[in-house]
Amino acid sequence: MYKVMDNNDFDALRLITSPERVLVGEEINPDYAHDELGGISRMPEALVRVLSTQEISKIMAYANENNIPVAVRGSGTGLVGSCVSIHGGIVLETTGMNKILELDEENLTVTLQPGVLLMELAAFAEENGFLYPPDPGEKSATIGGNISTNAGGMRAVKYGTTRDYVRSLTVVLPDGTVTQLGGKVVKNSSGYDLKDLIIGSEGTLAVITEATMKLLPLPQVTISLLVPFNDIEAAINTVPKLIKSRYSLTAIEFMERGTILFSEDYLGKRFPDRKAPAYLLLTADGNDRETVDKELYGVAELCIENGAVDAFFVDTEERKSTVWSARGAFLEAIKASTTEMDECDVVVPRNRVAEFVLYTHTVSEQLDIRIPSFGHAGDGNLHIYICRDDLDEKQWHEKLSKAFELLYEKARAMGGLVSGEHGIGYAKRGYLAQSLDNAQLEIMRAIKKVFDPKNILNPDKII
Amino acid sequence: MYKVMDNNDFDALRLITSPERVLVGEEINPDYAHDELGGISRMPEALVRVLSTQEISKIMAYANENNIPVAVRGSGTGLVGSCVSIHGGIVLETTGMNKILELDEENLTVTLQPGVLLMELAAFAEENGFLYPPDPGEKSATIGGNISTNAGGMRAVKYGTTRDYVRSLTVVLPDGTVTQLGGKVVKNSSGYDLKDLIIGSEGTLAVITEATMKLLPLPQVTISLLVPFNDIEAAINTVPKLIKSRYSLTAIEFMERGTILFSEDYLGKRFPDRKAPAYLLLTADGNDRETVDKELYGVAELCIENGAVDAFFVDTEERKSTVWSARGAFLEAIKASTTEMDECDVVVPRNRVAEFVLYTHTVSEQLDIRIPSFGHAGDGNLHIYICRDDLDEKQWHEKLSKAFELLYEKARAMGGLVSGEHGIGYAKRGYLAQSLDNAQLEIMRAIKKVFDPKNILNPDKII
Repeated sequence: MYKVMDNNDFDALRLITSPERVLVGEEINPDYAHDELGGISRMPEALVRVLSTQEISKIMAYANENNIPVAVRGSGTGLVGSCVSIHGGIVLETTGMNKILELDEENLTVTLQPGVLLMELAAFAEENGFLYPPDPGEKSATIGGNISTNAGGMRAVKYGTTRDYVRSLTVVLPDGTVTQLGGKVVKNSSGYDLKDLIIGSEGTLAVITEATMKLLPLPQVTISLLVPFNDIEAAINTVPKLIKSRYSLTAIEFMERGTILFSEDYLGKRFPDRKAPAYLLLTADGNDRETVDKELYGVAELCIENGAVDAFFVDTEERKSTVWSARGAFLEAIKASTTEMDECDVVVPRNRVAEFVLYTHTVSEQLDIRIPSFGHAGDGNLHIYICRDDLDEKQWHEKLSKAFELLYEKARAMGGLVSGEHGIGYAKRGYLAQSLDNAQLEIMRAIKKVFDPKNILNPDKII
Repeated sequence: MYKVMDNNDFDALRLITSPERVLVGEEINPDYAHDELGGISRMPEALVRVLSTQEISKIMAYANENNIPVAVRGSGTGLVGSCVSIHGGIVLETTGMNKILELDEENLTVTLQPGVLLMELAAFAEENGFLYPPDPGEKSATIGGNISTNAGGMRAVKYGTTRDYVRSLTVVLPDGTVTQLGGKVVKNSSGYDLKDLIIGSEGTLAVITEATMKLLPLPQVTISLLVPFNDIEAAINTVPKLIKSRYSLTAIEFMERGTILFSEDYLGKRFPDRKAPAYLLLTADGNDRETVDKELYGVAELCIENGAVDAFFVDTEERKSTVWSARGAFLEAIKASTTEMDECDVVVPRNRVAEFVLYTHTVSEQLDIRIPSFGHAGDGNLHIYICRDDLDEKQWHEKLSKAFELLYEKARAMGGLVSGEHGIGYAKRGYLAQSLDNAQLEIMRAIKKVFDPKNILNPDKII
């Protein structure tokens, strides 16, 4: 169906870019066949380390003309195979497009190339007295990748997701046309919202080649509270009460003791407390210590009224680093605890999170398979890991697909959705199809066709 | 091109709804031919006062089958002709669908029908201890209308626009299919963002029949500051400094003395101060008076450092009512000051607002036509009114189109867009087409075709 690439194609790519930035065949590191989870795998025929909008435009025009599929890859930290070239063809690696182009202090925006890493943007903003609020766990992801999955992260409770910080996108359409969506403006009612259609489209509609992101003034004080509970239900059932309260929390994370222990093993660092079976990790920010403290004392009181055993202030640099580096390492730590795993990133209404987490325990017992989880309780977004451990290939696939089936069915019944922030990619296509009605699937397919009539840009992802 | 409706069609509509809710011919009040501004005018052939999703679904299926155009109308408070049935056919009036269906205090959402008025939703939220943050000037607009134009309003500086408060939409597609987009979930990376495509689409892609909106806990204290300046430039140039500061303002409005005088005339009420040529009206909210006061003292100081003459606290109920009812009446007051007017709702980067307002003065002098303006300085969104006064028809149209041309051209050159919150509708189509490149216009047209292949839902609007 797609063209098998030959030397003419490779030469064309070399001419558009430069010879040393086009890798073919065995020159390509096998890591480029998969993403962070590795379940979806296929080597590209050519890997091109692109450096500019113009190069990408020319490559897309060439690929479109010659019927060659193209997938875009940032750091490859995805979990659903979105950046895997499942039909071969070209992978465009954007990590060389890593320049911050402009800081506009009057409009509170930063303009950058898509290969800038989240941690680089966060540090740059902070050095200049600003906050880039989205804070996904994987700090080495690129901003292009964050936009493509509408990544959320820890601070979404107060600040929203990546979508809320995209002011403008320069994109290359599948036929090579370059266009700019949005602008340095705060409001917009000028025609259909194409910008939000690109955000979260996992590289299937257009290639993002530049973005202008919104920043906020940097809060002067950020303090967390680690709150142990005697059971997970009490912990998570406190969350709707926190949300309804007047306390403005930036993060509401939940974790179970098991996950904390994995992370201690993985990092070789002790967590400040590990006696309780379940914890909430809560954060508040503000401009003076007094106000933030007042807020967190109120929060602690509310937690204790709702069954918390204690509440520890995480306010020294050392403690902050211990707690948040543990939280940041959960995925890696669970991955290190097993032979293989797959994940479920459902989002449910916030008042159903406790019920859902308990349900994962039921599924775990029922299928006799380990299912650790943690997540963004304040957003109803859970990260649930189904671990292979010592299962053989056949058992693993049987149990994994049964577990997915049960979990997604439960989420659907609760009014939840398949993915809160990791996307659909290739791995979760079937579950998305089950969760949406035909009308919506048909509209999505038709929209894909509007942007990409030859189906060459990241084909067979999402839908 | 479209079917001319006959008695069979009217009977079919009566059968789907009920006879007394279908008005035809002279039974229809001539007001249904136009919206608030009245420049675009055409009587519908049938006006149907719909009451449910099911009725709308059946009517759309019938209209689609029979090639009859349909426009949806809430309170008719639009300014660009979006709800005018420019090809005749059916107007669906949704003001009878005015029920608030559910308040979910755990998920902080309210589910409602599209005909609920903004002032009704705002009051309902407040009575229950919540805030519905979007606060457009026109309080008698329906929420369906607010969603359809992505209305912004006074509090957008801190809280964003209507788009940011839509969790879920039930919509009827042009062929009558009912589908639900989004859910009671906070995050979503599950396929293309169709919900945001419907928001701001001015009733051209689907009919909104139910919406679940996000609420916030109600701040306990809201106080404004009225800040006079000796010139408009100094006033507006203070805005980027306020935005960059750590003060969190909910509203940053600017107004000129002329507009205040119109509003005094119109309301028959004195404004607290009218000596200065230009004012900023700033608001802060919070949970205790002390914190908000501290914030506003800081804001006042910053304003005075930047050329403000004084700063008045608007903290008594009486003063709040005087100032904000004046602000709310600006549009009506300007309308009452002239024979006819048209408006320009451009949005520019926030640091270009002063330059743009001064440019409206230049255009006014150059064309010898009155152009009062006011607006959301904190969002870069201006409301600029071109007044006919005693011009004859020919002069009026010449000067109006010249003024529009100059203003939109200037906005474009500044990286601005045609509409910040009032939409494109019928009146501003040409200007949108000039401001977008061909690739985007073609994608928008193709998306319209995906949703509405027979082009029966609000045809010829936006694009």
